[in-house]
Amino acid sequence: VIVAKNRADRPDEFARAAANKVAMRCPFCQGHEEDTPYAIATYPDGEGDWQVRVVPNKYPALFSVGELTRQSDGLWSTLGGVGAHEVIIESPEHVSSLTDLSPQQARLAFCAYRDRLRELKQDRRLAHGLVFKNVGSAAGASLEHTHSQLVATPMVPTDLHVELSRALDYYLQHGQCLFCVLIEQELASAARIVAESPQFVAFCPFAGRFPFETWVFPRRHASRFDAASDDVLCQLCGVVQDVIGRIEAVLDRPAYNYVIHSAPFDISPFDHYHWHMEIFPRVTRTAGLEWGAGCFINATPPDEAATLLRNVQR
Amino acid sequence: VIVAKNRADRPDEFARAAANKVAMRCPFCQGHEEDTPYAIATYPDGEGDWQVRVVPNKYPALFSVGELTRQSDGLWSTLGGVGAHEVIIESPEHVSSLTDLSPQQARLAFCAYRDRLRELKQDRRLAHGLVFKNVGSAAGASLEHTHSQLVATPMVPTDLHVELSRALDYYLQHGQCLFCVLIEQELASAARIVAESPQFVAFCPFAGRFPFETWVFPRRHASRFDAASDDVLCQLCGVVQDVIGRIEAVLDRPAYNYVIHSAPFDISPFDHYHWHMEIFPRVTRTAGLEWGAGCFINATPPDEAATLLRNVQR
Repeated sequence: VIVAKNRADRPDEFARAAANKVAMRCPFCQGHEEDTPYAIATYPDGEGDWQVRVVPNKYPALFSVGELTRQSDGLWSTLGGVGAHEVIIESPEHVSSLTDLSPQQARLAFCAYRDRLRELKQDRRLAHGLVFKNVGSAAGASLEHTHSQLVATPMVPTDLHVELSRALDYYLQHGQCLFCVLIEQELASAARIVAESPQFVAFCPFAGRFPFETWVFPRRHASRFDAASDDVLCQLCGVVQDVIGRIEAVLDRPAYNYVIHSAPFDISPFDHYHWHMEIFPRVTRTAGLEWGAGCFINATPPDEAATLLRNVQR
Repeated sequence: VIVAKNRADRPDEFARAAANKVAMRCPFCQGHEEDTPYAIATYPDGEGDWQVRVVPNKYPALFSVGELTRQSDGLWSTLGGVGAHEVIIESPEHVSSLTDLSPQQARLAFCAYRDRLRELKQDRRLAHGLVFKNVGSAAGASLEHTHSQLVATPMVPTDLHVELSRALDYYLQHGQCLFCVLIEQELASAARIVAESPQFVAFCPFAGRFPFETWVFPRRHASRFDAASDDVLCQLCGVVQDVIGRIEAVLDRPAYNYVIHSAPFDISPFDHYHWHMEIFPRVTRTAGLEWGAGCFINATPPDEAATLLRNVQR
């Protein structure tokens, strides 16, 4: 849990729109660069205009300056709020979904994710970097203009930690990557496959938490997203745009999130971990059962979701 | 994850109201008993009218009939959807929050939770029972009339399982209940205490996930909610109504959830586990960081939340 008081101050474009107030000036549009902090990185086109722009979050959950402090008091332990909280603005135009971008433009955004992770992992205070995207108010976005976020933390986030340790257990017991086995099983069954490319496979996971939840894995074992080449990212991006396009066709452009799960910044090799992306539309509300017990009710069996996604006409 | 297709059919009173359609007839109001399945239990007043009524969920996630089947296929394992999914209707009147009930009425609801758990734990197919309450659309409720739900499952839900195993580790290492130590620390610090009674203490947990999240623990070690006497439940209920009333006063009657964490149905004693309630208003939206990594940003430090809750004028 990150305790960050300043986050309470950030604007909410959707809430303002719902309250029928004057539309907010979008800080992410071309020409409004002065509304954001200075760019950390830009990806220009041939004419010198930016196509993708990375800026520090104006309302950061974590701060990049200072020593990493540690405090312990009985059961409670605290790390200082050191880290990075960056925003990847994925287009100069005011569009809202990854599927609104040209393949070239989307690929640049994915290159920006990778490049920022490569840079941040040089920071010895940091343990992990998480890239995620929120599209739509129901998915937690506060601005409509298409963007992703990168949060780099001095510890590994809970779910990643659990995933890593389950994967390590499996590897130690079976000498194989749990995810390689999972991919093999999904391909053999074929029931939940949504899309394929020479290097990637997308499927609705067995017992997925959310209706139409879809995971995208590289077929060949690799533990780090940030080790991917431009060519690999280009292909990944094509598969992700295809999957999101299918979800948007079946569910009429729902709010959605995606997240990139990649190994921690630690230098040791991770033979047991397999990076991947998780994409989930936000069409259900979560209640006491989900937040109170980690138990999910999915009313769309993953096999049926995959069939709908595979067959949808666009 | 419970895969339950029939859940997709249930009505959503809030969605209908938002769509400006004709108001739905409330199936939980006195006089509309024919709109729900037959009652499993009723708690009458002196004149023979019911005050609390327990019915099977009309759109159950789990079903009470049949043998418990188990299937395994490589990495995937499936249990048949055996269990219980019950609704505790907490008042004959159309009110929406636990704080709208008289203390006597609320106490009856808590007695119903306990009695149903006692009954269900006789079923050898079931491993655990979870009682939770959703109030308001943002908290996942589909009906406004105050009610709670009980989901009994053939396995222990993920978060409970994690909590139990962390608590067991601590107990094996230190010979003490982790939660007893936690309560002691919170009482010694006093910074996050929200309310107290002779037998219960309520505090905002250190590094709570949600703003104003509050936990209520019995001071004396006990692993099962369902072992509580009427007197104990009466006191618990007073503390819970008090805490929710404070949250409603500070946050202007927000949507909220609560959940009861109690030991599994298993007969062995649980010296390492301490039952409790978790209450959390739903004032923030959850995004890629929360669902994608189990990482939460809480913009209200728990110490400040507790101070506000302690001092609020009502």
